[in-house]
Amino acid sequence: MKTFRKEIWLNVPDRRGLVNITSEVNDCIKESGIREGLCLVNAMNITSSVFINDDERGLHQDMDDWLEKLAPHESVNGYRHNLTGEDNADAHLKRSVMGREVVIAVTDGRLDFGTWEQIFYFEFDGRRRKHVLVKIIGE
Amino acid sequence: MKTFRKEIWLNVPDRRGLVNITSEVNDCIKESGIREGLCLVNAMNITSSVFINDDERGLHQDMDDWLEKLAPHESVNGYRHNLTGEDNADAHLKRSVMGREVVIAVTDGRLDFGTWEQIFYFEFDGRRRKHVLVKIIGE
Amino acid sequence: MKTFRKEIWLNVPDRRGLVNITSEVNDCIKESGIREGLCLVNAMNITSSVFINDDERGLHQDMDDWLEKLAPHESVNGYRHNLTGEDNADAHLKRSVMGREVVIAVTDGRLDFGTWEQIFYFEFDGRRRKHVLVKIIGE
Repeated sequence: MKTFRKEIWLNVPDRRGLVNITSEVNDCIKESGIREGLCLVNAMNITSSVFINDDERGLHQDMDDWLEKLAPHESVNGYRHNLTGEDNADAHLKRSVMGREVVIAVTDGRLDFGTWEQIFYFEFDGRRRKHVLVKIIGE
Repeated sequence: MKTFRKEIWLNVPDRRGLVNITSEVNDCIKESGIREGLCLVNAMNITSSVFINDDERGLHQDMDDWLEKLAPHESVNGYRHNLTGEDNADAHLKRSVMGREVVIAVTDGRLDFGTWEQIFYFEFDGRRRKHVLVKIIGE
Repeated sequence: MKTFRKEIWLNVPDRRGLVNITSEVNDCIKESGIREGLCLVNAMNITSSVFINDDERGLHQDMDDWLEKLAPHESVNGYRHNLTGEDNADAHLKRSVMGREVVIAVTDGRLDFGTWEQIFYFEFDGRRRKHVLVKIIGE
């Protein structure tokens, strides 16, 4: 069995934003030399998500609007978590909807994806460095 | 280490609908010959989900009603994604709530499940062929 | 390849409640002797979740309030599932938001975590014994 580990670092300039990290994960698969196995990609911070969906800008804006409706940033003082001095309680909730991680099959040395599957990092409390873990096991 | 891969194809006749795919996944475990490991089951399309819950018809209807409330289909033109000619923005959001994938333990050559766990495919934009990936690794 | 399996049993005294299970999962990693691999932790019951987030009491209360808003317990008779004699339809929906499982990288014989990542069990229909599965594969 082979294993591979790498961190991807990101710094989203706004509070919220999406980054397509598919090519970085693809590079990890190649670098690992693993041809058959499973690839875990997870946010290592707890106010961001890794998820798989379509690379379509309008959809990303729809997602952002929708999450802001489900778990609004305001009122900041309405969240108990923010009484600790934070202002990111909403970010923890948004991340709960979108999920922490994805697990992807590796087949023939490649991400085993449907036509439109792309991997995204969704930042909900940006303007600082965050990291994503890629762990691959297989042979 | 052994690996196994198979696609399950589905064609849900309505826009939305649930299909119990537990027996198909069970067949994959048997076919794989893998006795100990992990089994990934994921939607390969981005407007459907794979999730684990109860096989109870009333609950499924509750889920469908609830998702339609959280991310309504109408108004179609209210979503930026639908300006591309699609009418399925809500399907992408509903799938985000229910998730893309499940990872299941394989123990003694079987799905290692609690009493009521069943695997479902949830279609949010049906009336065409879609596929689900089953990837098993172990020994 | 090595595999390891253990069940963690819990009995949350109220209908809803959170339990930090990070140290129990850590103990499983040590007991397994696995140094590199993947660790699956999933609820074996379908009215509870396993998820990763911050160990902050105010945030946990925010999450509980927020889930009750997204999928309220009342009115109990408003859910079709509850016509079967249950009163836990909301628990199935809340669990759908928070997720069934997490997959965690094992590196150097430890949970490969960011600074604030902690594993929680979220009970949505407690006052009875429930179980969580830990399955680790690797070497």
